Amino acid sequence: MKILLIGASGTIGKRISAQLSKKHEIISGGRTNANVEVDITDSASIEKMYQTVSSIDAVICAAGPAKFGLLAELTEDDFYVGIRGKMMGQVNLVRIGQKYLNDNGSFTLTTGILSDEPVFGSVSLSLVNGGVNSFVVAAAQELPRGLRVNVVCPTVVEDSAEAYADFFPGFDPDSMERVVNGYVRSVETKVTGKIIKIY
Amino acid sequence: MKILLIGASGTIGKRISAQLSKKHEIISGGRTNANVEVDITDSASIEKMYQTVSSIDAVICAAGPAKFGLLAELTEDDFYVGIRGKMMGQVNLVRIGQKYLNDNGSFTLTTGILSDEPVFGSVSLSLVNGGVNSFVVAAAQELPRGLRVNVVCPTVVEDSAEAYADFFPGFDPDSMERVVNGYVRSVETKVTGKIIKIY
Repeated sequence: MKILLIGASGTIGKRISAQLSKKHEIISGGRTNANVEVDITDSASIEKMYQTVSSIDAVICAAGPAKFGLLAELTEDDFYVGIRGKMMGQVNLVRIGQKYLNDNGSFTLTTGILSDEPVFGSVSLSLVNGGVNSFVVAAAQELPRGLRVNVVCPTVVEDSAEAYADFFPGFDPDSMERVVNGYVRSVETKVTGKIIKIY
Repeated sequence: MKILLIGASGTIGKRISAQLSKKHEIISGGRTNANVEVDITDSASIEKMYQTVSSIDAVICAAGPAKFGLLAELTEDDFYVGIRGKMMGQVNLVRIGQKYLNDNGSFTLTTGILSDEPVFGSVSLSLVNGGVNSFVVAAAQELPRGLRVNVVCPTVVEDSAEAYADFFPGFDPDSMERVVNGYVRSVETKVTGKIIKIY
């Protein structure tokens, strides 16, 4: 398969790339250091990306800005960092991509455990993750030409567990292998409309 | 209690008002025909509303615009109708209201079954409902001064079942009594961070 991976240089993206490149052709997408340039907060940039690459079988998004911060301190604009980024960035990858992907292709988005199990300071991330999870279940019913969409929803992952330890007290980090397997399952099986929880 | 009810003239709002006014003082909020004027899509209008009313014990929101439509047809702006309305409108009622409500006061928001059980054309509503549900669970952990927040998440309700029948085939409408009870439970018990599903 020809797989477009957005966020290929991130903590999870690097591992997805290492695993999936054994069997598939990976095209990286990102703002810098990528095969194809894309800013997912800008739908014109997404449209341009899809016009640049061709014959894509799968899109994986392991990127998306959002702002950690307390409800007492976050401004409305702070919420919109996540809404324009991790939320509508991923929605637009599907909304626009449905015209471009090969028949029977798949979208795999990324959220996280904060949709169900919040921590102090996660209000805007919880909002965004919960929204994308529900969007995926709904969008799967409507995609044309056998296209599929799923979302991988991991807990804290091993490779960033140390950096985030203070924000996620008592959360068991999960292995990178198990998290990467969530993406493999979405891409290589026929499942659709699934929130693939890795916890 | 002194309860600010936004959307008091709507299908559900009318019933909430009829029930809660038996025991409490109800102040209606809305764009027109209300005790206090508010446009929840505008955070400046929300701030002004809270400055106008005083000593509020509970805020209930049974309003919030969002756009029904197919993923193949919705524009990015169509998604933002729900994001600015039903999603950030309700987030801002809590975010701004946390400064104004009486100690131990409560917020009760409204979403709906489409967060979990989508129908054809519900992608933007599913997104918004899922986001607000997760926001409520997260925000409950952070509210100061004993403030609480819950969300009532009904299925199709009796009073609008006929109008929506074509969009919700096979969905059992629930009684207005059961739906209103969700709001009563949020306001009059001590529960917080709960998605009160009426289905």
